Amino acid sequence: MNTANLTVDSDRLIRRLKALAQIGALEGGGCCRLALTDEDRRGRDLVAGWMTELGLDVSIDGIGNVVGIRAGTADGPPVMIGSHIDTVRTGGIYDGCLGVIAGLEVIETLNDAGIVSKRPLAVAFFTNEEGARFAPDMMGSAVHQGALDLEEALAMSGIDGSTVKEELDKIGYRGDAVTGTMQAYCFVELHVEQGPVLDIEGTTIGVVEGVQGISWTEFVIGGVSNHAGTTPMRMRRDAGIVAVRIALEARTIADDMGGDQVATVGFIELKPNLVNVVPNRALITVDLRNTDEALLQEAEARLFAYADKVAADEGVTLDRRTLARFEPVDFSPDMIDLVERAAKERGLSTRRMPSGAGHDAQMFAPNCPTAMIFVPSRDGISHNIKEFTEPEDIRAGTNVLLHLVLEKADE
Amino acid sequence: MNTANLTVDSDRLIRRLKALAQIGALEGGGCCRLALTDEDRRGRDLVAGWMTELGLDVSIDGIGNVVGIRAGTADGPPVMIGSHIDTVRTGGIYDGCLGVIAGLEVIETLNDAGIVSKRPLAVAFFTNEEGARFAPDMMGSAVHQGALDLEEALAMSGIDGSTVKEELDKIGYRGDAVTGTMQAYCFVELHVEQGPVLDIEGTTIGVVEGVQGISWTEFVIGGVSNHAGTTPMRMRRDAGIVAVRIALEARTIADDMGGDQVATVGFIELKPNLVNVVPNRALITVDLRNTDEALLQEAEARLFAYADKVAADEGVTLDRRTLARFEPVDFSPDMIDLVERAAKERGLSTRRMPSGAGHDAQMFAPNCPTAMIFVPSRDGISHNIKEFTEPEDIRAGTNVLLHLVLEKADE
Repeated sequence: MNTANLTVDSDRLIRRLKALAQIGALEGGGCCRLALTDEDRRGRDLVAGWMTELGLDVSIDGIGNVVGIRAGTADGPPVMIGSHIDTVRTGGIYDGCLGVIAGLEVIETLNDAGIVSKRPLAVAFFTNEEGARFAPDMMGSAVHQGALDLEEALAMSGIDGSTVKEELDKIGYRGDAVTGTMQAYCFVELHVEQGPVLDIEGTTIGVVEGVQGISWTEFVIGGVSNHAGTTPMRMRRDAGIVAVRIALEARTIADDMGGDQVATVGFIELKPNLVNVVPNRALITVDLRNTDEALLQEAEARLFAYADKVAADEGVTLDRRTLARFEPVDFSPDMIDLVERAAKERGLSTRRMPSGAGHDAQMFAPNCPTAMIFVPSRDGISHNIKEFTEPEDIRAGTNVLLHLVLEKADE
Repeated sequence: MNTANLTVDSDRLIRRLKALAQIGALEGGGCCRLALTDEDRRGRDLVAGWMTELGLDVSIDGIGNVVGIRAGTADGPPVMIGSHIDTVRTGGIYDGCLGVIAGLEVIETLNDAGIVSKRPLAVAFFTNEEGARFAPDMMGSAVHQGALDLEEALAMSGIDGSTVKEELDKIGYRGDAVTGTMQAYCFVELHVEQGPVLDIEGTTIGVVEGVQGISWTEFVIGGVSNHAGTTPMRMRRDAGIVAVRIALEARTIADDMGGDQVATVGFIELKPNLVNVVPNRALITVDLRNTDEALLQEAEARLFAYADKVAADEGVTLDRRTLARFEPVDFSPDMIDLVERAAKERGLSTRRMPSGAGHDAQMFAPNCPTAMIFVPSRDGISHNIKEFTEPEDIRAGTNVLLHLVLEKADE
């Protein structure tokens, strides 16, 4: 049959999204389903139930990832759609959930049309993507793709002292499917942008080229506390002013380098933090991101050299600590082209862009052709109960997902 | 008699300093005698007792200032020596106390030598100079010189909710001497520098030319909180970077203007203060000081204009609030010359300098010839239990005080 005009039912999709959002619902909107809590269990039960209703063969692996398989006319690794259904403490209802429920909508659309693809299809949700209760984030997909050892992940303690293993057992989601071995033919994740670019530009589909590399550095600066009135400028060893200089250099680096380079100083702490005392201690963090590892290293090198210089000029001590460091992830050029083509064929505006946040898809990128589809987040707001994506954008993104899956599944 | 070679007994002076330091003594040195506490009462009782022992006629005024008068051969306003004996919470033993006890030492030296001056002499300690428990600081001297209304001062509430009046009554130091009327022939205050200049330069006597004007401004910056990864630089409205730019401009202004201009950013607070979130709110204080009011206004104008510009460039809101503003105080040129000459005649090294901190002397400066003598603070440390001044510097400073008083008292 000709599938070119096949479309998803976005009302049905949004009904499922809203039903899931009832679990752990927060006053004013949004929800709280921290990983492996009772709310997470109830969310999992609901979504796994839908999988079963849709005829998928559901399995649960040792870290609690849930995968539903729809058989194809041939055997082999599945075309896999996935994301997560855990949330941060004040999460929105779209982040993660959209990608999972859109996968179910793709399945139901094919069921309704009586279409069986050549390759199997899979819809998955991965444990603890957010990392809001247990570190690291993207835990389930990392274990699924062999990037993180299962036993190591199970032993992690959360913010409340409980371990992943205990909490998985408690909610009944430590399954027996083997992790680290499942191959996908390809992987695709539909997600809200969580940034303002598509919304501000009025673009419907973000064609994600990869995930930015992340470099988090903490600088600890030790100066000398002195009286703001009685200490001449030339005699100061001001930890605060060195923090300030580093912060401004981070912004200058991003402005100078342009492209995808971003730099953020979100955290500054001065001691004793009094109006009339020269700070003797300052802590500052710098978050640098770039889609290009060489450029990210260039930004780091420039920042670190500048920090060393201004600390020496002021006569203060400087210690530097890496809080996090991830290399950029590039998605498959063929998959990127496919996303773009599927969108254009549907008359949707597109924009190639990096993902500034981490996603489960990046764990698949080293092992199989991987793509992500972004849809707009109103005002770029995410991790917030005000997170919102227009129904028409959800429909557009899910149709792109459907046609990408159809094309890959019949290759 | 020829008084040129008269010298004080610095051992006796230091014994008194150390005896006073026993009251409210802190582990490791220093002391805590917050204004109008029981420790303050015991300190007052000790010093007032010494005044009486030395033959002074002691009176207490309505705000608790204690003045001991030594009659001269003629009537008229006294040559007045004064400072304070209250401390900050982790105070040193020299700040304030040195000026009061050095005054007693001058009296005892004259008593021992059988010298009666032409003009009366007075030694005073003033209530709540530090402002660590009740605002404003320099309360007692301000009321004494009519710069602050007595009833207004009595009604002030402290950090613990009690009022000045209640606490004065409780410790028995709300006296009946009338405030705001006592004229001094001249006023002189010996004080530790509380800064590093004399210590680093190896100079013994600081000839204080005046007190810096102080301008404290709080900037409240309102931006938009965004994800550090997903928000392109061009779309940011970063409250933190505007705070950082203002902080650096404050330093630049001080560097550019030179002279006595100092600028300090002691306080920065970002919200939400997380490594990967663009701050939506920043608070920052800037402390500007100069001995010249016109230059201080120039520094303020430059800072405020810059802050407005960078806030507009970033698209954030900016509110500005004056936390404190005092004009500079100039001491009498004749008194300044006298301090310098008295020091040089004793072979002591001198340096003319401003006071960066406020002192009781500044309340007298508008009403009578006023001077201050600074002696070194080791490493510039003050308001700290490690505050220290060498005994020979104490002796040198008190001898300068003695000869200044002798000269003025016989004019």
